[in-house]
Amino acid sequence: MTGLVEVFTGNGKGKTAAALGIVLRALGHGLRVCIVYFMKGDYPYGEQKILAQLPNASLVRFGQISFVDPLNVKEEEKEQARGALLAAREAMFSGNYDIIVLDEANLAAAWKLVDVGDIVEVIKQKPRDVELILTGRYADDKLIELADLVTEMVEIKHPYKKGVLSREGIDY
Amino acid sequence: MTGLVEVFTGNGKGKTAAALGIVLRALGHGLRVCIVYFMKGDYPYGEQKILAQLPNASLVRFGQISFVDPLNVKEEEKEQARGALLAAREAMFSGNYDIIVLDEANLAAAWKLVDVGDIVEVIKQKPRDVELILTGRYADDKLIELADLVTEMVEIKHPYKKGVLSREGIDY
Repeated sequence: MTGLVEVFTGNGKGKTAAALGIVLRALGHGLRVCIVYFMKGDYPYGEQKILAQLPNASLVRFGQISFVDPLNVKEEEKEQARGALLAAREAMFSGNYDIIVLDEANLAAAWKLVDVGDIVEVIKQKPRDVELILTGRYADDKLIELADLVTEMVEIKHPYKKGVLSREGIDY
Repeated sequence: MTGLVEVFTGNGKGKTAAALGIVLRALGHGLRVCIVYFMKGDYPYGEQKILAQLPNASLVRFGQISFVDPLNVKEEEKEQARGALLAAREAMFSGNYDIIVLDEANLAAAWKLVDVGDIVEVIKQKPRDVELILTGRYADDKLIELADLVTEMVEIKHPYKKGVLSREGIDY
């Protein structure tokens, strides 16, 4: 099966969630999946607990629990994101995975934690059978151009604007 | 925790997948989830295999494996979709679930398999603590108005246009 390059971007909720949903379906069909977190890898995301129990799912987490400030990116945050890209590349060439999710890779590039050219290189070297899924806001035009499938999640309504805070179990 | 009404709509890939990703996260946090399939319930969706193994996830499936033809809706398809809405309502009032996904409910209403007014009634009766997630294209304005969170998945690029067919494990 030819693997594609999928990009989920935009300002609306559902980008990482869509990648996770694709992962869930793929696992059900016996495919092997690796999720590489480029940022906030230490965040207590609920999916990690479930996926850790499933034999065909691997998680590789980079980034601290704290949120990156795009106006004040720290050197260690860049190192973490570059480590994530290396891990994604390694997973891609390992032959162990059918799908690799590069979670928040779009944003990591937009905020210059990694060079977008380095992500482009990884995509261009993708083995035929591997599917790559990139999530995050502000996907660079170069990534969109290389992608086979791009969905923009557009925020039509969001409760944070009404003062509802992020809720455990629903939003992370 | 106050449960919201979330709507994922639009012509792009990722609506049901986003709902499934939210489900995966929620299960990891110990929440209880029910997914009600309004259409294509017999379709061999990969997520059903994984979710069936997880104690806090319930699946209720309505609709045949075949795709509904919106120009020629059969009476039994309407019955199936109405059954799904009843099941969603029952799940909502059971006290057994924190999140209920009404998969393809938006499309079922748009194609008049169920009356949008009946979905509106269910939403209006939602117990405070329950989260409802509606997926599917063509979400009615009445549903968008009632929702707290709405994301439109906009198709920017899609490989079907390049002749790539739906692939087991990735697309269903």
